[in-house]
Parts: sequence; C-alpha cells; structure tokens
Amino acid sequence: MTNNSSSQTNNKSSNGNGNKINGNKSAKRRRTQKEETIKFISLGGVGEIGKNMYVVEFKDEILVIDGGLKFPEEDMLGIDLVIPDFTYLTDNLDKVKAILLTHGHEDHIGGLPYILKYVNKPVYGTKLTLGLLENKLREHNILNSVNLNVIQPNSTIEIGKNFKVEFFRVNHSIPDSVGMAITTPVGTILHTGDFKIDQTPVDGQITDFQRISEISRKGVLALFADCTNAERPGFTMSERVVGNTIDEIFRLAKSRIIIATFASNVHRIQQVLDAAYKYNKKVCINGRSMINVVNTAMELGYLNVPKGMLIELDDLDAYNYDQIVMITTGSQGEPMSALTRMANSEHRKVEIAPGDTVVIAASPIPGNEKLVSKTINNLFKRGADVVYESVSGIHVSGHASQEELKMMINLVRPKYLVPIHGEYRHCIHLAKIGETLGISRENIFTIEIGDVLEIGKEKAKITGSVPSGYILIDGLGVGDVGNIVLRDRKQLSLDGILVVVVTLQKGTNKIIAGPDIVSRGFVYVRESEQLIEEAKAIVSQSLEKCRDRNIKEWAQLKQAIRDQLGKSLYEKTRRKPMILPIIMEV
Amino acid sequence: MTNNSSSQTNNKSSNGNGNKINGNKSAKRRRTQKEETIKFISLGGVGEIGKNMYVVEFKDEILVIDGGLKFPEEDMLGIDLVIPDFTYLTDNLDKVKAILLTHGHEDHIGGLPYILKYVNKPVYGTKLTLGLLENKLREHNILNSVNLNVIQPNSTIEIGKNFKVEFFRVNHSIPDSVGMAITTPVGTILHTGDFKIDQTPVDGQITDFQRISEISRKGVLALFADCTNAERPGFTMSERVVGNTIDEIFRLAKSRIIIATFASNVHRIQQVLDAAYKYNKKVCINGRSMINVVNTAMELGYLNVPKGMLIELDDLDAYNYDQIVMITTGSQGEPMSALTRMANSEHRKVEIAPGDTVVIAASPIPGNEKLVSKTINNLFKRGADVVYESVSGIHVSGHASQEELKMMINLVRPKYLVPIHGEYRHCIHLAKIGETLGISRENIFTIEIGDVLEIGKEKAKITGSVPSGYILIDGLGVGDVGNIVLRDRKQLSLDGILVVVVTLQKGTNKIIAGPDIVSRGFVYVRESEQLIEEAKAIVSQSLEKCRDRNIKEWAQLKQAIRDQLGKSLYEKTRRKPMILPIIMEV
Repeated sequence: MTNNSSSQTNNKSSNGNGNKINGNKSAKRRRTQKEETIKFISLGGVGEIGKNMYVVEFKDEILVIDGGLKFPEEDMLGIDLVIPDFTYLTDNLDKVKAILLTHGHEDHIGGLPYILKYVNKPVYGTKLTLGLLENKLREHNILNSVNLNVIQPNSTIEIGKNFKVEFFRVNHSIPDSVGMAITTPVGTILHTGDFKIDQTPVDGQITDFQRISEISRKGVLALFADCTNAERPGFTMSERVVGNTIDEIFRLAKSRIIIATFASNVHRIQQVLDAAYKYNKKVCINGRSMINVVNTAMELGYLNVPKGMLIELDDLDAYNYDQIVMITTGSQGEPMSALTRMANSEHRKVEIAPGDTVVIAASPIPGNEKLVSKTINNLFKRGADVVYESVSGIHVSGHASQEELKMMINLVRPKYLVPIHGEYRHCIHLAKIGETLGISRENIFTIEIGDVLEIGKEKAKITGSVPSGYILIDGLGVGDVGNIVLRDRKQLSLDGILVVVVTLQKGTNKIIAGPDIVSRGFVYVRESEQLIEEAKAIVSQSLEKCRDRNIKEWAQLKQAIRDQLGKSLYEKTRRKPMILPIIMEV
Repeated sequence: MTNNSSSQTNNKSSNGNGNKINGNKSAKRRRTQKEETIKFISLGGVGEIGKNMYVVEFKDEILVIDGGLKFPEEDMLGIDLVIPDFTYLTDNLDKVKAILLTHGHEDHIGGLPYILKYVNKPVYGTKLTLGLLENKLREHNILNSVNLNVIQPNSTIEIGKNFKVEFFRVNHSIPDSVGMAITTPVGTILHTGDFKIDQTPVDGQITDFQRISEISRKGVLALFADCTNAERPGFTMSERVVGNTIDEIFRLAKSRIIIATFASNVHRIQQVLDAAYKYNKKVCINGRSMINVVNTAMELGYLNVPKGMLIELDDLDAYNYDQIVMITTGSQGEPMSALTRMANSEHRKVEIAPGDTVVIAASPIPGNEKLVSKTINNLFKRGADVVYESVSGIHVSGHASQEELKMMINLVRPKYLVPIHGEYRHCIHLAKIGETLGISRENIFTIEIGDVLEIGKEKAKITGSVPSGYILIDGLGVGDVGNIVLRDRKQLSLDGILVVVVTLQKGTNKIIAGPDIVSRGFVYVRESEQLIEEAKAIVSQSLEKCRDRNIKEWAQLKQAIRDQLGKSLYEKTRRKPMILPIIMEV
C-alpha cells in the first residue's frame, strides 16, 4: 500500500501525490501481502453530539459525508460556533471527490459555508437539504462558486473511480433525510444518517427498509449507525403523536395559540398548519430562521399551505385572538429568539396575555434546560397556559431507540458495527446492543474523532489518527481564537482584571508617574478604595525592591508586580484577578 | 394595627420599636376595624429552587424558617455562592425571635454561617440538622457564639408571646426532616418542609400523618407546601427501591464498586453499607463533604456501621478489587470532586480500571447535565461499567409528586394554599392541583420573593413587598460583587479586553509615550499584529483630533478612544472587547 496505510498518516507528504504514485501501488501491495482497505475517519460527530463530518477513503479517493457545526461548550467563552478541524481535507485536497449530505440540520450542514471556502468540491444532497444549504451559502456570498447536485432519495450515483453511492430514504425530524450505502472494490459500508423508524410518518414516506434490505442482501461490511438514543429502551414514537396532541390543544384553546418548535421540523409545522386549517385559524410565522425555513420548504413543495392562511405580524390586529396561531422560534429559550422576547415582554408586536396557549414543541437540548425553564416561568407569570414536554406528549425524538437500532442491525447484518453521532456513553450502549445481537466485541469499534479505522474484507482495525478537533468561530474570525485566548477569557470572567500602569524614567527606572490601578470585574471600586490604595503601595514597594537589587528587565519587574500583588489580593479577597502590569518609559 | 400592616413596610421606622408601641395596638385596631393578620414573606425559595428562607410575622414578633444558599446562575460569573438578601431581618432585628430549621440540606442551612453573623438569634432544629450546621459554623469560627437548640421531631415549643410551633416528621432525602405548624392568635399555618410520603422508609419513620391530621382537625388557615415535583404525576418512589437496585448491583459486580451520591443522603449511604455487609466488602469513604457528613451521622447515631467495615484510602492496596466499595462525592460532575478526578485519571489514589462498576446514584440538578455526562463518558472510556439514572432505577426524588401533594392538601384541608420551594412553573402546577381539590382560585397564592402575604381569619392578600433578592458571595467578599462587576465580567468573558495606555505631556496633551496596546482574551496577538498596529494608529488619530478641537478633558479623550477604536474593531472582527484607555501625564 501507499503511505495512506501508515499508522500515522503523514498528511503533508501525501498531499496531492495520490495520483502520481498510483503506478507503484499494485507492486507494493503484492510485496506486503496487505489487504486492501477502506478508511473511515470521523472529523466530528463521535464523542460528541454535533459537527458531524465523516471521511470515507479508498486508495487515492475521498468522500466526505456531511459538514456540521455545533454550539460552543460552556468553557468556550464568547465563541459563536464550532466547526470540525478539517485540516485532513485541505492536506488531501486533490483526493476529495465529493461531499455527500444526509439531511439539512445544522449539525450536518452548518459548517459547510466555512469548509467549502477551503474545500470547494461537488456537493450532493436531496432537494430540501440543498435548499437549506443554499440559504447559508447565499448569506456567506459563496453560492455561485459551489457545485450543488440534487439527488433523489432512492438514487445511485458513481463518484470517482471507486465509489458507488446508493441513497435510501430514512425518517428523521426533517424531511428529505437519507442514509447511504457506499460500495468500493473492498465491499460496501452503510451509513444510516440520522434516523428513526416512523411507521406513520406525516409525509407517508417510511424509512426505506426494502432498499436497505436489498443492499444488505449483497453483504454489508460495516454499518455506521446513529447511536443518539441508544440508551432509550423501546421505540421512538411517531411524529403523528405530536399531531394528535396539537389537534387536542387546538380543540381546547380559547384564545391565541403560540407554538415554538425547531424551524427545521417541517413535518411538525405541517401538522400545525393542518390543525389551523381544521379549526379555521390564520397562521403567522415568526422569527428569522422560522421564516427562512418555511419559505424554502414552501418553494420546494415540502409544505402544503392553504391560500390565504398565512398572515404577517403587522396584520395580527385585524383578527381576534381566537383566530390566531403563531409559529415561532425560541423552543430552546435562546435569548434573542421571538418566543423569549415575548416571554420577557420585549417583543415588538406580541404581548403575551392571560388565556394564550403557548406550546413548546421541543425538548431542551442538553445545556439549554435552564434557558427553557426561564422562558416557561416567564410565560406562566404573564398568565399564559404553557404546554411543554415534561407535562405532555408534545415532542418526539428524531432518533431511533433501542428496538429500532436492533431492527436496523438485524436488517443489515454487517460484519463490523461502528456507532456514530453520539457521545461516548451513547456509542458504548449501541456497542452493547450490537453484542446482544451476535456481533462479536472485536468487530465493534467505538471510535473517537481523528481515529483512522481501516476496514478490510477479513479484518478491521484502528491504525492511527489524523489531525482533528475543532475550529472556533468568533465573529468574523475563523480559528483565530484558541486555548490561550479562551484561558484568558475564563480568568477574566471569574475574577476580572487589574491593570497596573507605571511610567519609569529611562535608565534609572525611577517612578515618574503612577502606579495607577484600574480594575474591571474585580470589586466595586467605590467600596474598595482602601484595597486599591494598598495595591498601589505594594506595586511601588515591588519596584523599589527591584531597583535596590538592580533588576532592570521589564519582564522581571512585571513578574515581581504580579507575584506580590497577586499574593496580597488573594489573602485579602480569596480572588485571583488577572494582573496586567504595563510599564511605560520616558 | 401598627406599621406592620402598612402595605409597604417601612423597615427603618419599625426597627426595634415593636415592643414600645404595644400599648397603642388594641386601640388602633378597634378604630380601623382591620382584622389581625399573620404575615408570610419568602426571602428566597419561591420563583427558584434554592436559598430557602421564609419569614412568619405576627405583631412585633418574627420567626424565620431556614436560611439556605444556592449555587450561582450561569450569568453570575466567578461567584461562589448566593444567599438571600436578608435586609428585612437586619432592619427588624429586635423582632426576630428564632430561626427554625426543617432539615440539613444546603438550600436550607447553607446561608446561615453568613446570616447568623448579622442575625444572631436562637436556632432550633433536629439533631442531625444541627450537627450538620455545627460543622459549617465551626469552619466559619462562629460556633461558640450561636445558640443552638435541639428539638425532637414531634415536639412542641413556644416562642415569644405569640407563637406555638409543633414540629412533625416528614420523609425526605435526608434523615431528621420536619415540617411545622405555627399557631398564632389568628390561627395556624402549616409548613410542610421538603417532603415526600415514603411508605417504606429506610429508618421506618413515615411522614407523620397522624400528627398532621391531629393538627389539621383543629383547623389550618394556610398550608405552605413543597411544590418541587408538582409537575410529576403519580407517587415518588420509595428510597427502598434504590436499596433493591444497589443490592442487585452488588450481586452482579465482579470487581470494585464505586458509588457516588449526595453526601447528605444518609439513608442511601446506609443502604450501601447494608449491601456491603451482606456481600462482605470493605467500604472506603471518599471526598471531603462525604467524610464530614458520614462522620457527623455516625457520631449522632444516624448511620449504623459494622465495626471494621470502614477502611482508609491508604489501606485500599491491602484488599482485592472485589472486596472494595467506595462511597464518594461527585454525583453532579463537580470539577474538583473525587469521582470527577477519578474519571479524569487525576485522583491521587484511585485509578478507574476495566471491570469497575461505577454507580451515579443521583439525578443531575438542572444545569449540571453536561458535567455529569462528561463524567459518565470519561468513566466509560476508562472501561468502567457505569450505572446512572437514565438507564436504571438508582435514584428517587426526595419530593412529593402530584398524588402525595393531593394527599397532603386533603389531610390538612387549609383555607389558603401557598406553593413554596419551586420555580414559578412548579408553583403554578401546585396551584392547579389545589383548585382541582376544591380550594378556590382566590385562596391560592403563587407568591414571589419579597411579597408580603397577610393572612387573616377571613381573608388573605398580598399587601406589599419588602427588600429581597440575593447577596453574592465571591471568595471572602459578601455582597461586594454586584451588577456592574458582573456586567464587566460578562463583557470580558465574551470578547476580552484591550488596554490602551498613553502618556501625555502635561498642559499640551502631546503624546510622549505610547499609545501602547495590550490585549487579553481578544485575539492571538502574534497573528494579529497588523490589527493592533492599526488600533494604535486609530488611538493616535483620535487624540490628534481632540487636540485640534482643543478637547482636554480626560473623560472626553477616553470616550473618543473608546468610540473610534470600538467601531473599527467591530467592523474588522465583529467583536466588542472592553476598551480601557489609561492616560498618564508627565
């Protein structure tokens, strides 16, 4: 084999050389007797929920599956978005043949506007998925430079010299979701995409068992399966259940109905529209991302909206409360979202009133629990009747529970099983399920990001790793905020900062002006004058001592100030503000 | 009535005058024909989970129930603890007759070491509750100055001229929990404390229905009930269920067992000890707060530990893994706790090994979900078998669910119902339950902190409010961090800081040295040299412009720097770092 199979891929040397050394390969392979393998690498999406991005590599060709984003962890202060570190792709740019998309959720397509600027390769996805991506590319002004290819949910395409990709429809919390089987000379691997098995989906399109079964009959080497809900016993309920709850809410509501859900859950929005039609109400769409998605879904034929049903925010006054339904963003308690502003009485047009029924048709994404709870509390305080997950059946998951996962594994009967799309705990639970279904432990791989899993006909093995991790996006900066900046933000957030400024006389280091001390985020200055005066005295003393000992290096002077002042402040306050000495010289 | 009944209590004027104006009271009362009332005020614990503190006031006497803390919200950056604003008590210090405790949880006693320094009044609580409080007071060096009085769970005491307090035992997730009925000349109010109804408690001591029933037979004016779980249908399971799960875990475990739970859940710890006895294992207690509580509970007779069962961390090596049980802190994923350190391979003595069974016998407190999940992931990665709530019956709540709440309300049959110990959403749900049981809506009060609820024989009403809120504790500082400091910490945490230093010539404002710019938490300086150079130029230009326009006020110079530089940086980076201009003069 070529350098591709070395246990730690040396990306630099393989960069762009893939084609040139092709001629040597067969000779080498015969010499080493090493079996041909497919490489599978997760650049995001395992060991975490979010920023899904997977690499399938055979010889000198790479397919990329998805390119998602995730929202920052609590310790990523000030960061807006997180995308996968895609160094492996830029290092192997010539190899990359295509980017294949499973569906249009942020954690699968949200990173692409950034990634496509560096890895501009043909993108394949279903109509709605590409429609949603187009919106993003337009915002980033790169729509015209990207090659987008619509695929049908049950189509097959050939890419490069080695790949045949068969898509198949799956149920998920957004329409037009697909999984895919990728056939190479070594064999076929099957990637479920995000999926559940909904026997009564809103659009009537069930996860395509038959096609999966057909593909599987020819033998599947490895199954890459969505393990998000591998901890949940039983089956995930049908989206239709939510429709029933919505109907019940409409039947009982005496005044306005306000429903918050994920903008991308087009089927749920359709069910709200259906209920509005049945109960003869007007619908107002609210919130930027909700309006975007609804428009795209309507244009592409994924939403069926009766003529005259939709009204604008400015038209609300023309209708009685009992004629109005609002569909809005804010189901996660996001501070700037429409529902949160309504709950806080900060919405430009809508004031929550007693009698309103507010429905939060979503469950809080881990980490958002307190934000959602705050919104619920505020809505109750304004007199609304609030319907939410912990007290009703107003949300179902988009991911397969244990029995569905068993069904998928038994349908595909793969030699190898690889849990994806989950934290380690979820991966482990899917691995356990695989074992109970008879897949031997050594054929199940709970990989971590960057791991290179090499899959051959006879054996599979993690043979090394590639650069992986995350790129932080802060404002316009992509990757310009890293650990040092985050560490500083952390310290600043905990105890604030003290800036110590002093002007010294050139040569003698005599203090000419200062020391002055300015603090932010540390203490109330007005109540802590004495503390600040004492701090100034300590700085002066530190500098005196340095002069006495003939220490002139600014770095040493600053260190002395930091040490002495830090120690004193900690003793007096048990706080450790950042101390930033600035020395000027005249 | 006295000034006590004015709709907005004027605390200053009533301070200490309670006794002196007693003589006027009855005359006044006859004149105004106003009915005598009990005042009930929550200084913490409604509209939130945490820092419970309630005031019961009749004429010139005040009883305080509990004095808890809570952990900071996400936007309280750098804060260690939050306690109630108890200004109302310091303003009415002479009136306060006693502090009555329901149980020994942090959210009920954790604020007392701070509060007792200002409101040093006799404290009444059960043996274990006071034992746990004593530990805290010792740490704060105020144990000897506080008057602690042990009460029996079914005793009655008289306090002051007007109060008779009857305690009754309730089940909760800590032993020795009580509720209380407080009888005044106006009538009796009943405070449930934190409670559930456990028909098979570990210590055999059931919530004392009979005493509650007896008290209620004489008529209860108002019921103050724990609404924490008012959203949950059915009954809360018995702690005994956890014992069964623990037994099952011990039966199946092949190697070491490590169990994390709340240190204060003495019954759960007892059940672990019982299983250890049955399966012939040694037990090692780990983590500072766990050791403290176990020692206190053992000393006071609340834990039954067979001789020779407990071993020290340093003795672990003398035993085989299958002989060892560890009980540890860290069930909330707290970064410095013993279990978290084990999960991160940072524990001094214990390295998690494949085959270990790690049990997290707790559910994540809202806000801690991601920390707990991180711990679970790390334990799995180290090969442990991890048992936790979402996949097993290893935790039960300490609070009453809907059916228990109904039972309590039907038992007490109060005229008024007041939900306490919950966010607004929980209060509303208990209010709804009260309505279904026939209490009329206008007799149910979902109060907010600071509200003064006046309860008379014939009617009750919110008549005003008193100072309330929170006091932030940061290191040694109690209340010295407020909104401005927090706002600065927030801004610093999001985009960091740029300090701009310039030395001007006195009189002329000519730049002698600088401008220098130092940034922290903004961008990597090495990769942003150009940005910083441009920033310096902008500062120089701003100062030039001011000189041209003869602006000499430093405040104006600083504002010009902030405006110009802020605008430029936002355009280039979409970030808004704090800009701190410092001008020196020589």
